Amino acid sequence: MTGRIAVIGLGPGSPEQVTPEAARLVAEGQEFFGYAPYLDRLNLRPDQVSNASDNREELDRASAALKRAAEGKNVCVVSGGDPGVFAMAAAVCEAIEAGPAEWRDIDLVVVPGVTAMLAVAARIGAPLGHDFCAISLSDNLKPWEVIEARLEAVARAGFVIALYNPISRARPWQLGKAFENLRRILPGTTPVILGRAAGRPDERMAVMRLAEADAARADMATCVIIGSPETRIIERGERGPLVYTPRFLVAEAVR
Amino acid sequence: MTGRIAVIGLGPGSPEQVTPEAARLVAEGQEFFGYAPYLDRLNLRPDQVSNASDNREELDRASAALKRAAEGKNVCVVSGGDPGVFAMAAAVCEAIEAGPAEWRDIDLVVVPGVTAMLAVAARIGAPLGHDFCAISLSDNLKPWEVIEARLEAVARAGFVIALYNPISRARPWQLGKAFENLRRILPGTTPVILGRAAGRPDERMAVMRLAEADAARADMATCVIIGSPETRIIERGERGPLVYTPRFLVAEAVR
Repeated sequence: MTGRIAVIGLGPGSPEQVTPEAARLVAEGQEFFGYAPYLDRLNLRPDQVSNASDNREELDRASAALKRAAEGKNVCVVSGGDPGVFAMAAAVCEAIEAGPAEWRDIDLVVVPGVTAMLAVAARIGAPLGHDFCAISLSDNLKPWEVIEARLEAVARAGFVIALYNPISRARPWQLGKAFENLRRILPGTTPVILGRAAGRPDERMAVMRLAEADAARADMATCVIIGSPETRIIERGERGPLVYTPRFLVAEAVR
Repeated sequence: MTGRIAVIGLGPGSPEQVTPEAARLVAEGQEFFGYAPYLDRLNLRPDQVSNASDNREELDRASAALKRAAEGKNVCVVSGGDPGVFAMAAAVCEAIEAGPAEWRDIDLVVVPGVTAMLAVAARIGAPLGHDFCAISLSDNLKPWEVIEARLEAVARAGFVIALYNPISRARPWQLGKAFENLRRILPGTTPVILGRAAGRPDERMAVMRLAEADAARADMATCVIIGSPETRIIERGERGPLVYTPRFLVAEAVR
């Protein structure tokens, strides 16, 4: 008997940004696995079983979920944002590859969602309007030197940069070091956005220039977007600034 | 009198992937601007006005929409996927910056959506599970040499690469050249995904190795994802392969 495992992206936090597909699969689910704050968003029925876990136990959580699916249950693994972006979908794939052969027969459905950088970008204009990249600043899973080399490569090549997992109690200095390194490559006037909890009641958006970017203003729920030399700020008085990256490339900014 | 302009992402194509926020703003809209195939998805009421335009007239379309919003209308500009990713949000910002001062007073709302690379990734596993970038292959708006330099920089730095606008009648050779260049940098075994029309009835997903990647199998509706040296394929027999990029970095693959 084989059930199903759905790896579901719940979007950045607002119920209005949960897709109908995600809502349908949650309604169909029997057992739920995920980091507690994401499970708390679900309003599960009494017949639906919730298994909350710590944020750092991703592979164990994926294996536990696959085991229940292999036993015939309809299982949901939930992530904030999109499950394929620094979230549970890769952990579930890792567990399938390393696990018993019958796990490959389980019906796996990955349900995409609005990932944090898209929600933050939308709140502030269109900073991701041209070539961009997404980098996790977490050095639990890769050496810090690799992160530094990647940041340098994309900054020099003119990409807008979205940083996920920018800061935590266990990783207090990485974002400040990233800003410091980028100041050696990018103009001090480059726009930086600290976008916290986009679409949630505790949302907070801050726009600043790279020269003044202050890592202390970010927290675990922040997605940081660093512009390219093309990125522009439009002042709008009381409405607050718009930040966008033009679709075209101004030739003299090419390096 | 000042109206509102909502720049709305309709997601990759399935109605189940349109967020409730996008659906609400469409229901509230009076006048609609966009590329015809996106407007065709909307099922507008008789009292809602549709202004279809060619795909290449983005700045004109943005200005026309802002003009109507400045006249007090509730205007919607629609994009497929996410409006901030190689789509209308940047064009609207460009038009605001270049336009009359009163356009800065218009209420602008950008509604994020599931962008193509997330939808394609979800259908095939988790290829974007680690650091990744998005590049438009269109050289209408930037020189081809810049695109080549960017591809080389991110491939050497270990990013997964999502290519938007990979091919069209006016740009027939660029994707083939990109594959050719990447073969000099990445292993021939690197997984490549051609993901067409994810979530639509005419969806088509193909997984191949970079050594055999054939640009002729892509079209305008395709999003191409090229793995990093870390990206893996899990064979599953009849279920078809899963492709994923592990969350951790295997040390020996670092270059």
